[in-house]
Amino acid sequence: MSIKVAVVGAAGYSGEELLRLLARHNDVEVKVITSRKYAGQPVSDVFPRFWRSELKFTAPDVKTIAAECDAVFLALPHGLATEYAIPLLEAGLKIIDISADFRLRSTAKYEEYYGEPHPAPELLKRAVYGMPERYREQIKTADLIACPGCYPTSSILPTAPLLEAGLVSTEDIAVVSMSGVTGAGRKVDLPFIFPECNESVKAYKPYGHRHLPEIEQEMAVAAGTDQEIAINFVPHLVPVNRGINSTILLNATEGCSMDKIAAAYEKAYANEKFVRILPPGKCSDTKYVTMSNCCEIGFNYDPHTNKVILTSVIDNLTKGASGQALQCMNIMFGLQETAGLL
Amino acid sequence: MSIKVAVVGAAGYSGEELLRLLARHNDVEVKVITSRKYAGQPVSDVFPRFWRSELKFTAPDVKTIAAECDAVFLALPHGLATEYAIPLLEAGLKIIDISADFRLRSTAKYEEYYGEPHPAPELLKRAVYGMPERYREQIKTADLIACPGCYPTSSILPTAPLLEAGLVSTEDIAVVSMSGVTGAGRKVDLPFIFPECNESVKAYKPYGHRHLPEIEQEMAVAAGTDQEIAINFVPHLVPVNRGINSTILLNATEGCSMDKIAAAYEKAYANEKFVRILPPGKCSDTKYVTMSNCCEIGFNYDPHTNKVILTSVIDNLTKGASGQALQCMNIMFGLQETAGLL
Amino acid sequence: MSIKVAVVGAAGYSGEELLRLLARHNDVEVKVITSRKYAGQPVSDVFPRFWRSELKFTAPDVKTIAAECDAVFLALPHGLATEYAIPLLEAGLKIIDISADFRLRSTAKYEEYYGEPHPAPELLKRAVYGMPERYREQIKTADLIACPGCYPTSSILPTAPLLEAGLVSTEDIAVVSMSGVTGAGRKVDLPFIFPECNESVKAYKPYGHRHLPEIEQEMAVAAGTDQEIAINFVPHLVPVNRGINSTILLNATEGCSMDKIAAAYEKAYANEKFVRILPPGKCSDTKYVTMSNCCEIGFNYDPHTNKVILTSVIDNLTKGASGQALQCMNIMFGLQETAGLL
Amino acid sequence: MSIKVAVVGAAGYSGEELLRLLARHNDVEVKVITSRKYAGQPVSDVFPRFWRSELKFTAPDVKTIAAECDAVFLALPHGLATEYAIPLLEAGLKIIDISADFRLRSTAKYEEYYGEPHPAPELLKRAVYGMPERYREQIKTADLIACPGCYPTSSILPTAPLLEAGLVSTEDIAVVSMSGVTGAGRKVDLPFIFPECNESVKAYKPYGHRHLPEIEQEMAVAAGTDQEIAINFVPHLVPVNRGINSTILLNATEGCSMDKIAAAYEKAYANEKFVRILPPGKCSDTKYVTMSNCCEIGFNYDPHTNKVILTSVIDNLTKGASGQALQCMNIMFGLQETAGLL
Repeated sequence: MSIKVAVVGAAGYSGEELLRLLARHNDVEVKVITSRKYAGQPVSDVFPRFWRSELKFTAPDVKTIAAECDAVFLALPHGLATEYAIPLLEAGLKIIDISADFRLRSTAKYEEYYGEPHPAPELLKRAVYGMPERYREQIKTADLIACPGCYPTSSILPTAPLLEAGLVSTEDIAVVSMSGVTGAGRKVDLPFIFPECNESVKAYKPYGHRHLPEIEQEMAVAAGTDQEIAINFVPHLVPVNRGINSTILLNATEGCSMDKIAAAYEKAYANEKFVRILPPGKCSDTKYVTMSNCCEIGFNYDPHTNKVILTSVIDNLTKGASGQALQCMNIMFGLQETAGLL
Repeated sequence: MSIKVAVVGAAGYSGEELLRLLARHNDVEVKVITSRKYAGQPVSDVFPRFWRSELKFTAPDVKTIAAECDAVFLALPHGLATEYAIPLLEAGLKIIDISADFRLRSTAKYEEYYGEPHPAPELLKRAVYGMPERYREQIKTADLIACPGCYPTSSILPTAPLLEAGLVSTEDIAVVSMSGVTGAGRKVDLPFIFPECNESVKAYKPYGHRHLPEIEQEMAVAAGTDQEIAINFVPHLVPVNRGINSTILLNATEGCSMDKIAAAYEKAYANEKFVRILPPGKCSDTKYVTMSNCCEIGFNYDPHTNKVILTSVIDNLTKGASGQALQCMNIMFGLQETAGLL
Repeated sequence: MSIKVAVVGAAGYSGEELLRLLARHNDVEVKVITSRKYAGQPVSDVFPRFWRSELKFTAPDVKTIAAECDAVFLALPHGLATEYAIPLLEAGLKIIDISADFRLRSTAKYEEYYGEPHPAPELLKRAVYGMPERYREQIKTADLIACPGCYPTSSILPTAPLLEAGLVSTEDIAVVSMSGVTGAGRKVDLPFIFPECNESVKAYKPYGHRHLPEIEQEMAVAAGTDQEIAINFVPHLVPVNRGINSTILLNATEGCSMDKIAAAYEKAYANEKFVRILPPGKCSDTKYVTMSNCCEIGFNYDPHTNKVILTSVIDNLTKGASGQALQCMNIMFGLQETAGLL
Repeated sequence: MSIKVAVVGAAGYSGEELLRLLARHNDVEVKVITSRKYAGQPVSDVFPRFWRSELKFTAPDVKTIAAECDAVFLALPHGLATEYAIPLLEAGLKIIDISADFRLRSTAKYEEYYGEPHPAPELLKRAVYGMPERYREQIKTADLIACPGCYPTSSILPTAPLLEAGLVSTEDIAVVSMSGVTGAGRKVDLPFIFPECNESVKAYKPYGHRHLPEIEQEMAVAAGTDQEIAINFVPHLVPVNRGINSTILLNATEGCSMDKIAAAYEKAYANEKFVRILPPGKCSDTKYVTMSNCCEIGFNYDPHTNKVILTSVIDNLTKGASGQALQCMNIMFGLQETAGLL
């Protein structure tokens, strides 16, 4: 029994990644892929890798999607998901939103960082944060998933177990990330042309990044506090196609040790298929997770400064977006969580 | 009146960079370039870019160098400089050492990080730290220069003025750096072959890096404290040839502000030819300094966490090694500091 | 019923690629992976992407392999395959050799290009050239496959149908190829370190390349001539990890036209799963075939010079080596040809 | 006595390269840099590498340029040069045009490849092809220079001496080139964003490229024939910023030999500062000429096919455009030809 899915806004890199993964999923049938810009064109015109596919882009039409599909992946630019989520939820479909629109719990935070009131606060309440390793039970029964951002996935997965175990403080957390250029999307803009990115390393949005409230929200949940956490998050652009490395510095609490860190990870992730904890002291490398749904985490303790130093790598398009989205879909429909992802 | 120079250990990337710069210097004559490995071979065999040159590598010979030269650049692997520095200083030559051998003030620190006692503690005392922006006067009269490491240059230049002005605390300083692969040297080793570096981002030596004591030493000097400073320094390898970006997080002190930071930089660097402070809030980009002796610094203040966030870029081979070495040589010989470097 | 396989010499990039593909093959069980260098080590130590695997490298042992396996992939450096092929064929196993050792029909050509007589001429006779699109029937009943070289695959697939149809002359064929650096193997050598390959494009071995006799052999077969064909083949190294583009210039014969070329390709490849002919006039792009077993071919006719211009792209490790090897294994064992390759 | 120059259309990569070179030229003063798009902005806003400069872009104004300047570099998109060339020539200025507008001798060819009649055929007659190694005398007295295209420079320099010496035939010449992405200009278009170029190799415009008539024109001149030459020219895009490699196959004529080829190059280029002939049998590498005005040429003879195989590398922005333009300016004004270019 195939799950019939639609991908709305399928013409960006996360859309392409979704199609790549769905093509290898035995229990999914892609019924609809939409793109205003490419409506009418074969998917192989826009994404030549899919030359075997007979899919065509269509202009998004809620009625058609509601009629033909069981689940919908929304891969739209920020702010557009609500328009689809509301009617499709009403029609009984399961929605997995890859944008940021439903990730924040607080409408105040949403307004602070996005500059306008949230268009559908009730959806904010209804949405489940789509990180299976932390919200598997809720995802099982959810009908609206807010797929985490790439930087948040990259920084929450390594830090949450340590916050939960009280091994690190919530104060002075610093996340420094380096991302490949597909993280900017399939955007045609001067800063992203090849000669501007190649042989270039640069920080951008050194504070106030839109992923910040999301990271802080989840870290607070992990730490079990309703106090707001204020962290530093500094992203950088590096000349690779895919991959994010996040290096995270945290204050060790009393009694923290490499053994206890290892134990906390074991407790949190021992049975997880998509989180890999490296041997103590090792550092992650993005090239080992590209094109995979895996997050690899390395951990160190620096006695010189009493800091825990974590490195975490994901593929920004896979575990950072579409792979995690598919992982959620598998859970929502009671399938093997790894289907299409190994 | 040409200054006659020797480059000992000229067959690595910093050696090549030195030759590139020296070729454009009107007052320098390169008399000797040495390499045990390539002794007898034309420089153009090893570095085809120098096909116009008639230089040949020779096996290093102290007597020849002492007889023919006024100044010597030592670009040897760690631990070998002393053997040349002692006799050549005795012969009255000026020495600019690009290795780490004479950078640390403390023999104890040297021993802690290098695993053996310093071979020539008196040279440690005699050496001047080769960062013109901070030690210009001492460099003028020095005969032994310890050229700073690339990561230290990249992190001391942006932080020192703020430490001096008391605008940032010495506690909880975090330096996160990303370096191009030439930073590893012309090393033939599996981790550095193209497929292992390309499309790969990774941290390494997340604490205890050998540059750490050097960075902490100079930060303490800037802060005017004889207390040891303990910082976090986490380097990363990114797939570019040249360039280092260092992103630095510091605690702002009471009264710190963007205006005061700008003023501190103005005071420290207004007349510096090789330090450029970006407009407030901008971030640096390595591609604007590659092949140049410039350090570009961006600064931000994050009210959310009360942190000062600096970004700093240099070319690891130029301002991070050979350019800075040449800058020191110019000062030592009373030449225009920018000679050969613009 | 799983086919039990061994991979001998599994510690290079084609070995790693083979393991990646075999892991996704439902009917294969990898029993043995050998490497003298890494004997005893877990595969995940050498190839961290395989962290889920429990395989360990062993020192190659013919008896063990013969006892445990049905098929063997030989991924050894040139010249070593015979030592394994002889006893393992005797033991009744099927052998797929990824090296060049059994590709040439002519012992004279072998001696001319490899500088020594062929160690096992009878194996040369026995081996079937492992290009399914051209030798499927023979592969079905073969027990020794000589997997084609990457450049030969890249140049034979696009030219053979046109030679067969008499649309192009056998005279003045020029193949100009550009390959990613994994084509050189996992070789630790100065020309292959990152700074020597990055931002660098260069031809090498502009004539007399070892792949030349192989390409000429197969072109002659396609042309149905026992005359020797002499072509030009000039390879280049370009800074990508994977991928080969071959651009091929051929003299059009009388009556050649774009329609006839299209028809010849249709006839040859209409039902092929791993060859894709682009719409008339389009050029191939390596990024659309990397990590896939596909060869994409573009064709043009230039009336200005009466030349047919072909472009052909493959992934050098997949269709250029291990993917094609697996494709052959599928055929040899009567499995679906695409198993593990989609 | 400084030469006062204007750069019209200075906001592309060749404009930036020109400014980089002019900054190091002791006898040039840049008075005017124009850009409609950036008029009024400091050059350092658009090209941060020029932060030391006080130049501002202005909207192009012929009167101002005529009043203030001695020479003008035109770096405009195709088709716009005439509008400036006519009045500025009239005002007595020397013009160096980097576009293709004045390169072809034949108005018929111009119309065939550019789709419209030439706007100023008298300028076509007046212009001198700006390749100093071949037209130095004419350049000395010229007032309008048509700077050659990058691919033409890359293919004419290595072939012309051999055609002149009758060592190669004019039949069946094949030029296969690989260019870095700056060759496409500072163009903001989907095919040129980083993820579309990185890890990608592809041919484009496999015949009928606009550089074709230019290459054929100059090869015919070199061969001393008024017959038209028809060659194959196939360009490719490879993921580097700068650099072109051209690999050229030519039929050897009777008596051709490696020694004669070497002699022909010696005769043509022995005293040339910007052409380097590699030792016999060596292949060029783009990384040795990037950021330099040099063309490096390697030559081979393949007895197997009786072909001469040449490899030639230049930096597409330097010797392929702005460096060669400056080289011409030096000649036009009687300066040392290497000024600003070493």
